[in-house]
Amino acid sequence: MTLNRTIKLAARPVGLPKDSDWNLTEEEARDPGPDEVLVKVLYLSLDPAMRGWMADTPSYIPPVGIGETMRAIGVGRVVASNLADLAEGDHVSSLLGVQEYATVAGAALQKVDPSVAPLPVWLSTLGMPGMTAYFGLLDVGRPQEGETVVISGAAGAVGSLVGQIAKIKGARAVGIAGGPEKCSYVTDELGFDACIDYKAGSVADGLAQHCPDKIDVYFDNVGGDILDAALAKLARHARVVICGAISQYNNESGAMVGPANYMSLLVNHASMTGFVFSDYLDRLPEGAADMGKWFAAGEVKTREDVVPGLENFPATLLKLYSGENNGKLVLEVAPE
Amino acid sequence: MTLNRTIKLAARPVGLPKDSDWNLTEEEARDPGPDEVLVKVLYLSLDPAMRGWMADTPSYIPPVGIGETMRAIGVGRVVASNLADLAEGDHVSSLLGVQEYATVAGAALQKVDPSVAPLPVWLSTLGMPGMTAYFGLLDVGRPQEGETVVISGAAGAVGSLVGQIAKIKGARAVGIAGGPEKCSYVTDELGFDACIDYKAGSVADGLAQHCPDKIDVYFDNVGGDILDAALAKLARHARVVICGAISQYNNESGAMVGPANYMSLLVNHASMTGFVFSDYLDRLPEGAADMGKWFAAGEVKTREDVVPGLENFPATLLKLYSGENNGKLVLEVAPE
Repeated sequence: MTLNRTIKLAARPVGLPKDSDWNLTEEEARDPGPDEVLVKVLYLSLDPAMRGWMADTPSYIPPVGIGETMRAIGVGRVVASNLADLAEGDHVSSLLGVQEYATVAGAALQKVDPSVAPLPVWLSTLGMPGMTAYFGLLDVGRPQEGETVVISGAAGAVGSLVGQIAKIKGARAVGIAGGPEKCSYVTDELGFDACIDYKAGSVADGLAQHCPDKIDVYFDNVGGDILDAALAKLARHARVVICGAISQYNNESGAMVGPANYMSLLVNHASMTGFVFSDYLDRLPEGAADMGKWFAAGEVKTREDVVPGLENFPATLLKLYSGENNGKLVLEVAPE
Repeated sequence: MTLNRTIKLAARPVGLPKDSDWNLTEEEARDPGPDEVLVKVLYLSLDPAMRGWMADTPSYIPPVGIGETMRAIGVGRVVASNLADLAEGDHVSSLLGVQEYATVAGAALQKVDPSVAPLPVWLSTLGMPGMTAYFGLLDVGRPQEGETVVISGAAGAVGSLVGQIAKIKGARAVGIAGGPEKCSYVTDELGFDACIDYKAGSVADGLAQHCPDKIDVYFDNVGGDILDAALAKLARHARVVICGAISQYNNESGAMVGPANYMSLLVNHASMTGFVFSDYLDRLPEGAADMGKWFAAGEVKTREDVVPGLENFPATLLKLYSGENNGKLVLEVAPE
């Protein structure tokens, strides 16, 4: 018998999730059935999208039910296997959930190789954020050489990769991030051409300064005023990529504020297109091959903000929405 | 000497244009110079876009200056010509302005043939609204056979044509219009599959009823709540065509309200793309050929709401924004 601590959704949050929206319980982990494995969870990915998974509104994926273990992508180690191609000790990635042990069907698992990259990197550059950045920028945004790509949430897990991929493809990358530390990380370490500190001044002024030829691709992770500022500076035939709207997820009214400047799309014959990672499940090998190659060559850098302790999940998640995280936010459930 | 009555912009309107925003003056028409013609204005097109031309905000075309003749597309008859290929008595279309006589460069003129269609039709099906409907639907919206196309402003100059073109291309057409008369015009005379009366009930309910497979193409002329209702019902890979936002043009605050439901683009991997007529100037012959063929064959029907009298321009323009017009709104400046 394996004791499993698990964090369940106790109530649907209004605004920011509170402690009382969660329930930490202990129960026995279910033994793996045929074609299943039991995985010891090591690292969990904490993502802005989690707020949407908690809400009972129509989306691309059903909401987490009240009383269910919170959904999370993670990496872990197989501790018992009923599958021929997975052995005890193998490392895997999947929707493991916010818990210590997960019983998962083999078909839902992706094998990961810790010799290629440390396990947390399999949750960032080589995981969902990496694939989100890759397909969102290259398939939806389609930057051409010499074009200007602007990225909000530029120091975040997805945004930091979007700018680096834009540079690899010969475009200019201008980030938007909060605070001087994040901005110098974005320019000095990640190699963006510029970064606008939205906490220090007007984003519109920053865009005017750093995008003299306006914006060809705007990759939006935040929504709200920053999206409006970018819309006001679109070049003709610009592509706006809607990846997220973290500024809007915790509005207490539950109401999103839409982009007032959307008529800039009309004036500039521009488009605004949304997507989610799972739209590209059939093309993941293509993205994984490029991202793996660039990671190995040092062409994309990555930074993980690893916080230990399953019980710290509720407080750690809030760092995403306050902008306190410093790189891809990862919860360490158990050391390697 | 030819006396010319002309309506000039006296002030930039706040909210709906008022009488005091206009100035009716009399002046001498300028004689045509080399390669110019003098045109007697017969019919003028009154378009929702005019409100934008009066505003001093960045757009696809400079605003009309204070003290300048109001911009308008019209058809007229050549009364004096310094061009070899245009003779007195020929009919032409161009940006003639809200006035009785226009002195225009030959390069800016399009010859029109009154034997093909009555002159007001050259301002609707065979003019800017026709080309706007044609390229907006077919190039931006790209409906496929069997798909569902929803059109707001469905009884208007552009919307009425969009639905008919959608039907010609084998798609379902569902209109949104205000009042039972407009709705029965849309279904009974124009042949749309259904029309939702936004004044009679919930647009969301109407869309749920008439779009069981959701919306593949949404052609938006109105913005505001109706755009949000349509966004909430998008099918996967839907295309939203932004053609106008007439509900928002006269907000006294000057502030547009953006579509709060824009994250439906993300959930459905959908796009929202804007355009204006002038994006397609180089492809007008293609659109004119198809629309002319369909008009001649009776496959697209047209209705013009012709109001006589140059001096009635200010009051007549307001019919567009109150929804009182009944078909393409045309001002008759002089009878044929």
